Amino acid sequence: MATPGPKADYRFDRSLALFNRATKTIPTGIYGHVSPVLMVPGASPYYAAHGKGARYWDVDGNEYLDFMCAYGPMVIGYAHPEVDRAAAAEREKGMCFNHPSERQIELAEKLVSLIPTADWAVFAKNGSDTTSWAVQVAREYTGRRKVLAAAGAYHGAHAWCTPGHGGLIDEDRAHVHTFPWNDAAGLRAALDKYTGDVAAVILTPFHHPAFGDSVMPAPDFWSAVRSLCDRNGVLLIVDDVRAGFRLSLQGSAHYFGAKPDLVCFSKAIANGYPLAAAVGRDDLRVAASKVFLTGSFWNGPDAHAAALATLAVMEREGAIEKMRRMGDMLMRGLEDAARSQGLQVNVTGHPSMPNMTFSNEKDFKRMQVWSEACMRRGAFFHPHHNWFVSAAHEEEDIRLALDIADVAFKVVKDRFGG
Amino acid sequence: MATPGPKADYRFDRSLALFNRATKTIPTGIYGHVSPVLMVPGASPYYAAHGKGARYWDVDGNEYLDFMCAYGPMVIGYAHPEVDRAAAAEREKGMCFNHPSERQIELAEKLVSLIPTADWAVFAKNGSDTTSWAVQVAREYTGRRKVLAAAGAYHGAHAWCTPGHGGLIDEDRAHVHTFPWNDAAGLRAALDKYTGDVAAVILTPFHHPAFGDSVMPAPDFWSAVRSLCDRNGVLLIVDDVRAGFRLSLQGSAHYFGAKPDLVCFSKAIANGYPLAAAVGRDDLRVAASKVFLTGSFWNGPDAHAAALATLAVMEREGAIEKMRRMGDMLMRGLEDAARSQGLQVNVTGHPSMPNMTFSNEKDFKRMQVWSEACMRRGAFFHPHHNWFVSAAHEEEDIRLALDIADVAFKVVKDRFGG
Repeated sequence: MATPGPKADYRFDRSLALFNRATKTIPTGIYGHVSPVLMVPGASPYYAAHGKGARYWDVDGNEYLDFMCAYGPMVIGYAHPEVDRAAAAEREKGMCFNHPSERQIELAEKLVSLIPTADWAVFAKNGSDTTSWAVQVAREYTGRRKVLAAAGAYHGAHAWCTPGHGGLIDEDRAHVHTFPWNDAAGLRAALDKYTGDVAAVILTPFHHPAFGDSVMPAPDFWSAVRSLCDRNGVLLIVDDVRAGFRLSLQGSAHYFGAKPDLVCFSKAIANGYPLAAAVGRDDLRVAASKVFLTGSFWNGPDAHAAALATLAVMEREGAIEKMRRMGDMLMRGLEDAARSQGLQVNVTGHPSMPNMTFSNEKDFKRMQVWSEACMRRGAFFHPHHNWFVSAAHEEEDIRLALDIADVAFKVVKDRFGG
Repeated sequence: MATPGPKADYRFDRSLALFNRATKTIPTGIYGHVSPVLMVPGASPYYAAHGKGARYWDVDGNEYLDFMCAYGPMVIGYAHPEVDRAAAAEREKGMCFNHPSERQIELAEKLVSLIPTADWAVFAKNGSDTTSWAVQVAREYTGRRKVLAAAGAYHGAHAWCTPGHGGLIDEDRAHVHTFPWNDAAGLRAALDKYTGDVAAVILTPFHHPAFGDSVMPAPDFWSAVRSLCDRNGVLLIVDDVRAGFRLSLQGSAHYFGAKPDLVCFSKAIANGYPLAAAVGRDDLRVAASKVFLTGSFWNGPDAHAAALATLAVMEREGAIEKMRRMGDMLMRGLEDAARSQGLQVNVTGHPSMPNMTFSNEKDFKRMQVWSEACMRRGAFFHPHHNWFVSAAHEEEDIRLALDIADVAFKVVKDRFGG
């Protein structure tokens, strides 16, 4: 294959015109985790037009081999016909009702059958809906107030956990405390400090902070967390919103041998249809029943049907193993390509959610240049957020991505030296 | 028309079998605002099967002329072809992306053009997403902590406002205080009590509490609220999640002559597609930009397209006037039917969101019997939550509903006396 050059027609005329138009009626034009200021401003795409499989196109017609997967939801590829058909069959009957549909029960049964620690399930629309609710359930169950989390972990956009600083008051986090990831002694110290008042420990299955390397659980971390929780009468919540259904169909907690009391899912559960779920242990049913959980659109059956179809496709087609294989090929290839340029990178995370940083780089300048060079050549990688591999990625896609990455490493070397 | 009798084949065999099955894998079987314990247990539908226009069918094949409209979202009828086509055209391109689509900008522009006090808009998935965010924006803008709300009003299911009691801690509402609806003096007293520390007053456009009569704003209430807010440097948030796009396409605040700083919409905005919006005044842009607002599925263009189509249909077909006319016919007809049986009822609220209670009844027993008698005859009315009229309701539907209501009043009279 010829060395991929920058696309001659890579441009943002329409993107920038739309963005300028958007700033008039939308604060900052594009807000939230997809804000262009969080990418490579002026060099990364602004507006999506359409997608198919592992690729999408922006409004300027630029094509991207995608390694963000809508920040997680696309797990078997954009516009998957089987998922869309299942959802469409429900929507033809109606979008939203005064009551749930049978699909909700079927999906609860499916999750209970898949997730070893799940005896029941409830559904919502955002990951944050379920992480916040799980904390309330833990408070209801224990009669305690405190929540312990790993420093730097993302658990949603609600006031108690948002990475933003705007509009917060002291009370929002009066009972939320952090300890370092993988630091069982730090957790023990926090439990001792707040003894008798800790309701829950909430953790992602592995540590995947933005602006940092991903960190796998230390060999004894999860068993230490479980025994510390047991010893202190504290509930263990696993926030599997981002990683769920990428590492294992039994949930990422199971993948790492963790035994949580409550698990939160969202993102990949329905291949992009808006859905979140929380599952829990049998003896939390009463507490779960006492914490009001509701939303206007939560009984819409199309998202439940999309989840059932997504999980069926993943089981049938071995999606988990496929993602692991593709992601592993990508991770090893990136390490080799960087090494061959004399560059040091940290490629971390699970193969289905790889992360890359340049060693000893704090300002992400090299990552921005590298990401931009990839984007200009048609591969979409984020400069400081973990990536996502889907089951729609094929070996030839990974080879193309590695060819592009190789050139991008050369661009970095030319700009910054070895 | 013959007097409608109870349907001979009105039954719940399949509903109850499903519900029993659901209790195994879902706490309480059906949770949230659609819980059957909030209806007439054993006599009202449990699971929806399909809907069309103003009617839906449950899993036992029971047909209902619907006056709940999925608790608000269905504003131009179930399975509206034009809305579904617009959303489907987007979904074919992909459900969820790394970036927003053009549809988001078009919808922001549409809301800004419709809502007189809106200079910008942002979008989310749940009404609660926007009411909680609006409170944070007010805190960011004012640097203050307190929120004042009308006692008994519903502003969502988050900890600071949920009607539930489970899992709450004191800090959740340390700075949320209430005053009686329509009581400008009560609001003034609260502003005086917390002088210099009130960030926002949040109010629904009219008072529509569950378990109570709806109350329209007193003639000078909104102007008093606005001038009290201005005098105290407090932002006014109108929570139009439930009433929005039923009273006026310019928003219910405008309908009542109120001038809010921030308005929250959801429910009816996209005829059942999951979407919420917040709109605000120009000088709140910076504060709005500083309060992180995001969700995994919020860039999915299908809901934005559904909203654009819903609003276009409503404008073209005069949906607001149609709902007002149908609702007015229903409200006047119910008063007449009750009166002719010698029964006293309070029919309150806006015609698009009627509410009925039996006078001096605190336990809702008559309302439950009346609702059950209606449901058994094929008209779905809630016993203690405001109802919803849609633009899909026709005069013959209202006549049928009134015929059924008339029989139901007789049932109440026979059971409880006049």
